[in-house]
Amino acid sequence: MTNLAALDFSAWVSAKQAHIEVTLARTLPAVSITPNTLHEAMRYSALAGGKRVRALLCYAAAEMCDTPILIADAAASAVELIHAYSLVHDDMPCMDDDDLRRGKPSCHKQYDDATALLVGDALQSLAFQVLSEPELTLNTNLQAHQQISLLNILAKASGSTGMAGGQAIDLASVGKPLTQAELEAMHNLKTGALIKAAVLLGAVCGSSAQITAVSTYAANIGLAFQVVDDILDVEADTATLGKTAGKDANSNKPTYVTILGLDLAKQHAQQLYEDAIAAIAPFDDNTQRLRELAAFIMQRSF
Amino acid sequence: MTNLAALDFSAWVSAKQAHIEVTLARTLPAVSITPNTLHEAMRYSALAGGKRVRALLCYAAAEMCDTPILIADAAASAVELIHAYSLVHDDMPCMDDDDLRRGKPSCHKQYDDATALLVGDALQSLAFQVLSEPELTLNTNLQAHQQISLLNILAKASGSTGMAGGQAIDLASVGKPLTQAELEAMHNLKTGALIKAAVLLGAVCGSSAQITAVSTYAANIGLAFQVVDDILDVEADTATLGKTAGKDANSNKPTYVTILGLDLAKQHAQQLYEDAIAAIAPFDDNTQRLRELAAFIMQRSF
Repeated sequence: MTNLAALDFSAWVSAKQAHIEVTLARTLPAVSITPNTLHEAMRYSALAGGKRVRALLCYAAAEMCDTPILIADAAASAVELIHAYSLVHDDMPCMDDDDLRRGKPSCHKQYDDATALLVGDALQSLAFQVLSEPELTLNTNLQAHQQISLLNILAKASGSTGMAGGQAIDLASVGKPLTQAELEAMHNLKTGALIKAAVLLGAVCGSSAQITAVSTYAANIGLAFQVVDDILDVEADTATLGKTAGKDANSNKPTYVTILGLDLAKQHAQQLYEDAIAAIAPFDDNTQRLRELAAFIMQRSF
Repeated sequence: MTNLAALDFSAWVSAKQAHIEVTLARTLPAVSITPNTLHEAMRYSALAGGKRVRALLCYAAAEMCDTPILIADAAASAVELIHAYSLVHDDMPCMDDDDLRRGKPSCHKQYDDATALLVGDALQSLAFQVLSEPELTLNTNLQAHQQISLLNILAKASGSTGMAGGQAIDLASVGKPLTQAELEAMHNLKTGALIKAAVLLGAVCGSSAQITAVSTYAANIGLAFQVVDDILDVEADTATLGKTAGKDANSNKPTYVTILGLDLAKQHAQQLYEDAIAAIAPFDDNTQRLRELAAFIMQRSF
């Protein structure tokens, strides 16, 4: 990658991060709307910035598949709202009991447990509301049956055989020895399902060959993301990470690092990265952002 | 109402209650599917029986508007899944902290808080999954844009300007004096939004005049339902109610009974009932079930 391309990618990331922030700010109900505190807390939790990796993946897949920006915005917003809800609920005392999120008090610390519970619930509803707005098919080439497919993909990725199911397996596995296969199955649900949904939603206007390719890309990059996360949990410090470092290891949760060791975990991430890139290679001309994002996920030091 | 009609209605209710139970049992993931405990807890919470008033309203509206049974089943299931998720989350210690639900331990007592949180989250996702299945438009006269409308109505009814928002206002109002107008606004969201959605979803295949009529019916019957609930909270005992009686009064929550007194609360419920019946009067031939259900909601002593 030349310096020019790197600069270009960094500018693209910044532009898209700013764009999804504005889009979400417009989508979330204003604080002036009743119930005010709930809406304030929803905005506090969903507009807290962050890397917006899922939105970036969605936009990158949309660029590959010529998905109109109106659709990509709705898809990226919906996925980020689901992700935001999961963080709010995961941080609660009965789950991970985490006081910090992106360097700020987590939702239940800033407000209270009941508010955090409702914030998560309402953010999930909002995700499906955004994706089911009738105007999405009015001014674009998106067919109604494709819009239904977007909703179905997101619902499956979020539920008990997707993200929420992965969280349940994660909780049940604390302190238990897991094989690498079991750990992988857990992460495929907990983190992988929503990352895959982000890519598939962005690719909704692609050919079936394109959709198959990005699906494989997404499965591999979703796992790589989690392996890198486990590596960062060991290598980064709390200030850089914006959340409590070493938490997984300290709470006796199985991670790629505890199962494989640091060196093999890094090799595993590299292999997943290469498999992701290989999957989209046939569409090389239009996959620049997806390739850059894969590298970005591998290299992040935050 | 003749005895024959009453018997007929009672048979219809029993048949529909059994039917939605079977439909939900088929819809919910089997316990044998991973994560097993989460799926067991989802089934424990969503198949706990109950009156299934929302499903009954949905089926009654479907009969009025000739909505195919495949669509009515999906709509009734989705609404009952949203209702079930809200009960699981409402019972949690950080919310109403209720140990009993329909005479059995509530989800977080039977399992634990983390499981209850995930059960609610996953039941919500499942509701949107059921309504977004592509086969709903394949073998029926339902158009794809109508299916999208179902999803949009349910999402709005569930979120921060619907059910979850009503719950937030309810929590914020404990111990505060509320006017009748404020109480009504709260219940319109907390209970009314989902009851209205149940009726509107069932009426999806109706004419616009029919949909307008059932919308007014639903708004009135939704409020009547809550007024009757408040009356029952005072008049029924815990064993009959299947949940802790007198809880709202004891926790200093405003109710129709505390604001209006028992007699005026009963008069108010009667007025709402009559307004509901008047709204659907122009379609008298096809509204038998909706009329019977309105009477049923008024007369329930459980």
